[in-house]
Amino acid sequence: MRIVVPFGAAEPKTRLSPVLDATERRKFAAVMLADVLGALTDGGYEPTVVADAPVDVSSFADPFDPASSANPGAERSLGGRPVETPVPVSVDERSLTAAVNARLPDHPGEEPTAVVMADLALATPTALDRLFDREAEVVLAPGRGGGTNAVVARAPDFNVDYHGASIRDHRRIAADATRSLATVDSFRLATDIDEPADLVEVLLHADGRSAAWLRDAGFEVAERDGRVDVHRQ
Amino acid sequence: MRIVVPFGAAEPKTRLSPVLDATERRKFAAVMLADVLGALTDGGYEPTVVADAPVDVSSFADPFDPASSANPGAERSLGGRPVETPVPVSVDERSLTAAVNARLPDHPGEEPTAVVMADLALATPTALDRLFDREAEVVLAPGRGGGTNAVVARAPDFNVDYHGASIRDHRRIAADATRSLATVDSFRLATDIDEPADLVEVLLHADGRSAAWLRDAGFEVAERDGRVDVHRQ
Repeated sequence: MRIVVPFGAAEPKTRLSPVLDATERRKFAAVMLADVLGALTDGGYEPTVVADAPVDVSSFADPFDPASSANPGAERSLGGRPVETPVPVSVDERSLTAAVNARLPDHPGEEPTAVVMADLALATPTALDRLFDREAEVVLAPGRGGGTNAVVARAPDFNVDYHGASIRDHRRIAADATRSLATVDSFRLATDIDEPADLVEVLLHADGRSAAWLRDAGFEVAERDGRVDVHRQ
Repeated sequence: MRIVVPFGAAEPKTRLSPVLDATERRKFAAVMLADVLGALTDGGYEPTVVADAPVDVSSFADPFDPASSANPGAERSLGGRPVETPVPVSVDERSLTAAVNARLPDHPGEEPTAVVMADLALATPTALDRLFDREAEVVLAPGRGGGTNAVVARAPDFNVDYHGASIRDHRRIAADATRSLATVDSFRLATDIDEPADLVEVLLHADGRSAAWLRDAGFEVAERDGRVDVHRQ
């Protein structure tokens, strides 16, 4: 199975701007990508990053070193763990939808393709196995707020459309193509990290580079008016 | 297994007040409870409602009839489906934490107890089976935002504490009691319906009474600034 991880390298995670500046957003996006790639490679999969701008995955190096993204010669490690498998990066400046559709199967018998978003900081090999183990022609992992956080396409006539409430569109596209559809019921795969309120999920449910990076940046779980949120020291 | 469904009948769902008035909140809370009880009874389980004020579950009758909650003699149906099994209701005016702890096992060999929140409008028998089928002494289903949406306690020295980031406290309590712990990774069980932004999940992912009630009240999926939200006609 081909596994594609789309990554918005040009201007990542703008909705986190209330709590992270542009440099931090780039760094945090890269750290989350490293967690997703790590969960995939730990599970034995071989992902390819599809980025909308050049990105040197090997340069993630030490996510705690602000200089590392400018220092591709730095030690090849992700959050202290060595990069055991170099992950290929393909630059595609088209929209997310167009770049993904260009990589989905377009004729019968072509290799199935999975698409896993780069901001699933809670992803684990176990959660990803649940995605890949479903046998339907189209498998969807819904994201909170109507999104589609992961797809497996085993049919040539399924395409993605990431605009708006994409999970609804993807169900319709699969139905129109009379393809069997399965949905993975996973909190980990449903939790894409877009907004400040999402950071608490990383702190509470992840133990990888993203959680370590947030803690190092001063974030901690806080309670305010009976609700749980993050606080930055 | 005993199954307890705590229900805040006194002043339900105050965080939905930006989009629902007090009467509507009471009605929608009752409809969600009916969905949760339906998912449990459809799965062959026999839940008990623990409410903080008297509530006549049989009076949910037709959730589309505004008078039904004041008319306990109305046809015994939930969203058009008959109530096949009357669900017992126990009134307990203590705090949620105290009312639940009073019902957890407190000596070895006592019947295991599950606690399932009443606002899990996306719950299905399949998702609940994943909760009940785990064999650990303590099974937790995290909710978004640090909550704990469902618990199975098979040990006498596990207690709940629903204040704040309860999922973290519950892990600690299980660890302190050296009890085996399992976590259910379910988007359906993680999605408690508290805030206006949560309503879109009901419209997109549920097909029971709660979704029908919202549609009848004029709610529909809308897109605003590239984000998916609800709009009320």
